[in-house]
Amino acid sequence: MEKLTHFDAEGHAHMVDVSQKSHTARVAVAESAVQMLPETLALVTEGRAKKGDVLGVARLAGIMGAKRCADLIPLCHPLPITKVSVDLTPDDSLPGVRIRAEVRTTGQTGVEMEALTAASVAALTIYDMLKAAEKSMTITATRVVLKDGGKSGRYEAQP
Amino acid sequence: MEKLTHFDAEGHAHMVDVSQKSHTARVAVAESAVQMLPETLALVTEGRAKKGDVLGVARLAGIMGAKRCADLIPLCHPLPITKVSVDLTPDDSLPGVRIRAEVRTTGQTGVEMEALTAASVAALTIYDMLKAAEKSMTITATRVVLKDGGKSGRYEAQP
Amino acid sequence: MEKLTHFDAEGHAHMVDVSQKSHTARVAVAESAVQMLPETLALVTEGRAKKGDVLGVARLAGIMGAKRCADLIPLCHPLPITKVSVDLTPDDSLPGVRIRAEVRTTGQTGVEMEALTAASVAALTIYDMLKAAEKSMTITATRVVLKDGGKSGRYEAQP
Amino acid sequence: MEKLTHFDAEGHAHMVDVSQKSHTARVAVAESAVQMLPETLALVTEGRAKKGDVLGVARLAGIMGAKRCADLIPLCHPLPITKVSVDLTPDDSLPGVRIRAEVRTTGQTGVEMEALTAASVAALTIYDMLKAAEKSMTITATRVVLKDGGKSGRYEAQP
Amino acid sequence: MEKLTHFDAEGHAHMVDVSQKSHTARVAVAESAVQMLPETLALVTEGRAKKGDVLGVARLAGIMGAKRCADLIPLCHPLPITKVSVDLTPDDSLPGVRIRAEVRTTGQTGVEMEALTAASVAALTIYDMLKAAEKSMTITATRVVLKDGGKSGRYEAQP
Amino acid sequence: MEKLTHFDAEGHAHMVDVSQKSHTARVAVAESAVQMLPETLALVTEGRAKKGDVLGVARLAGIMGAKRCADLIPLCHPLPITKVSVDLTPDDSLPGVRIRAEVRTTGQTGVEMEALTAASVAALTIYDMLKAAEKSMTITATRVVLKDGGKSGRYEAQP
Repeated sequence: MEKLTHFDAEGHAHMVDVSQKSHTARVAVAESAVQMLPETLALVTEGRAKKGDVLGVARLAGIMGAKRCADLIPLCHPLPITKVSVDLTPDDSLPGVRIRAEVRTTGQTGVEMEALTAASVAALTIYDMLKAAEKSMTITATRVVLKDGGKSGRYEAQP
Repeated sequence: MEKLTHFDAEGHAHMVDVSQKSHTARVAVAESAVQMLPETLALVTEGRAKKGDVLGVARLAGIMGAKRCADLIPLCHPLPITKVSVDLTPDDSLPGVRIRAEVRTTGQTGVEMEALTAASVAALTIYDMLKAAEKSMTITATRVVLKDGGKSGRYEAQP
Repeated sequence: MEKLTHFDAEGHAHMVDVSQKSHTARVAVAESAVQMLPETLALVTEGRAKKGDVLGVARLAGIMGAKRCADLIPLCHPLPITKVSVDLTPDDSLPGVRIRAEVRTTGQTGVEMEALTAASVAALTIYDMLKAAEKSMTITATRVVLKDGGKSGRYEAQP
Repeated sequence: MEKLTHFDAEGHAHMVDVSQKSHTARVAVAESAVQMLPETLALVTEGRAKKGDVLGVARLAGIMGAKRCADLIPLCHPLPITKVSVDLTPDDSLPGVRIRAEVRTTGQTGVEMEALTAASVAALTIYDMLKAAEKSMTITATRVVLKDGGKSGRYEAQP
Repeated sequence: MEKLTHFDAEGHAHMVDVSQKSHTARVAVAESAVQMLPETLALVTEGRAKKGDVLGVARLAGIMGAKRCADLIPLCHPLPITKVSVDLTPDDSLPGVRIRAEVRTTGQTGVEMEALTAASVAALTIYDMLKAAEKSMTITATRVVLKDGGKSGRYEAQP
Repeated sequence: MEKLTHFDAEGHAHMVDVSQKSHTARVAVAESAVQMLPETLALVTEGRAKKGDVLGVARLAGIMGAKRCADLIPLCHPLPITKVSVDLTPDDSLPGVRIRAEVRTTGQTGVEMEALTAASVAALTIYDMLKAAEKSMTITATRVVLKDGGKSGRYEAQP
């Protein structure tokens, strides 16, 4: 059975010791999506041009959210993040907005939680910006799609 | 067409003026879920008794996350939250953990973003606690199920 | 001689007691400006359309900065801010960007520090966004232009 | 034309990748000043001895502000700051207080934003401590005077 | 047996609902003390005049700490603090420094945690400022000495 | 006489320059204790099994508190913490709960303040969780028991 590293031998939560892990280049990519009505999505796509940049606000919130990860997730290590990007793509087939967050570090542990936090905060911000138009939006499919660097090797999600 | 209140007439983002809104009792309930393999879920349910309380950590993270909402979501108003609860239920049919967060205030604006943030941070923490066992977990179905109090009236999500 | 309210009778810093002050509608407006070379300003004005929205990022940073005021300024009271807007106007005669931040509350003390913090953080962000192009930018003329509500009455800066 | 590094090829804001930059000793010095009436400045200079240490409070706020830089400025990288000092000098010729903040790191990117943030928060705190005596104070001449370390070399402002 | 209000009927932690509690004037006073060697205390008392104001720094840290209480203590409600003062008194009989923190609010729940947090952060800061001289200092006797306002009535600690 | 490193030659507070200190493995252990009535302690020990996990909440709060140290203690350097554990042991002879916090880093300065902060926040949280049952609890004996790594060598407290 797998070991849950966030608990010690007695089952008590702790922040696991990464002192001996090497400072490696690490990257993680996470995805999320906000499903909405077609008419709500129309507000996003029209707005970019003239009425207000929903995606610009959400992108910035996601980037800043990555920096707050260790404040929010109890057992996460604080890490010197070296890169964050958040891509937001309107998708009529959803319909809604697809989110892709990439985070890099040269620290001693992975950054998948930072990437997931960036994607989640971007998604929450999209909800906030559009909730006056539609309350029934749903945030869905938040997951890690790529993790690389460090001892545990490369992980890629199945499509 | 609906008006996006977070933008002014020129399409610039602003924190909308709620000075004239009344101090009412307000409540919001949000849901989320973390889907995982049956063997990962088994770690959660067994762990509650003896190996480490994944849900206890996630519950606390969700409660504290509600208090950080206005720090994370750019145009959210800071609010004197008067109640937060986060319920976490293992569900074999998912399989995974269902999350339900309830937030109350007597402030001048609604608390659906606080409830969504609590649910999202709890979900992210479940991912963090279990990621040593499974990286392919997915956070899904994050949405508002109830919002009441204030001028816009009661909203209930369809089941 | 004026009394400095942030010190007690012995000259020790304290957060002054506002328990007895009434909950009134209060507003404050602060200004600032970032002076730069004409070619740097051109990057801002062109960028809005196609290369990157410097002012959109700075506006959001200023709004979020207002919410962090009580964290940054040691003796400021935490306040339930009810409105923040930050206007950013390119001005060829400066040359540079003029900043105007407005903050409202219904709390027990004024919001001029919140408005000044919003204007300052917006100005710092403009510097950050443009520093790859010019390091010699200067932030100038940061001041309160309007304060109203509360016992001390209306204050308007001289033009 | 200069490139604005905080935007990607599509003009979207991102936190630029510094993973490949070397860990070098870096330093930045920023200045600011708070202009006030001579009688307000007298409160500062007299107060140091007996009525309350305005400059001691502002110095500490500036030092702590440097540590919050990456929380405030959206696209700033979090950095392991290794030194902060904030010097505050009453100047009758202004009249007012001159501020000089120095920040050092051994990180992968420069610390001019940390130095500017330290100087700005110190200036805002001086305003806060003295605003009961004078509302017309102005914060002025906030700029980088020295930046060294890293690939882009030494920058010194003109006097 | 007493009921622990921070747990619900199933024993799960929650932030208890205070929506129905009245907005009353509330006050709490907490104490703490830092014991040290007489020669360490001498550094404090001499320093106030000429070598560095240990108590001034600790006082400010305590005041700011009160504002961070709800960030630190998981189930504390965020509250609009209306007053914080921290008194620090060198005491040769300890020998060391005695700390007394007073916090007021007009919120819906008590402020004893805010007062205890202010006293504790002030004590930790005294340790930090003096640790180069003595590592064996001990923080002791941190307790609530007064709590008043609200339904549960007045509490005074025995001397 | 010992030198207080947190003040410069003029007695002004500063964050001391650690740029030249080496990145070494460093560890610190701090202790604290919460004294309470036997019947209050009984709530803790019984609760672990069925009524609510006081120690689980306090442990998590302590771990998260270590990460906030540089935010709380004015002149502390931000550090990349690599491990935090908080052990909480009910002790009938006190009666009360004994706290032991261990923090590790590979940074340029020691982590005794992080360990003391973890212990203190855990103690404050125990008080918060149990205050409905007893207001007269006292936090006592907060001190550093071990510090190792770095130039100043190993320090062990006397038993």
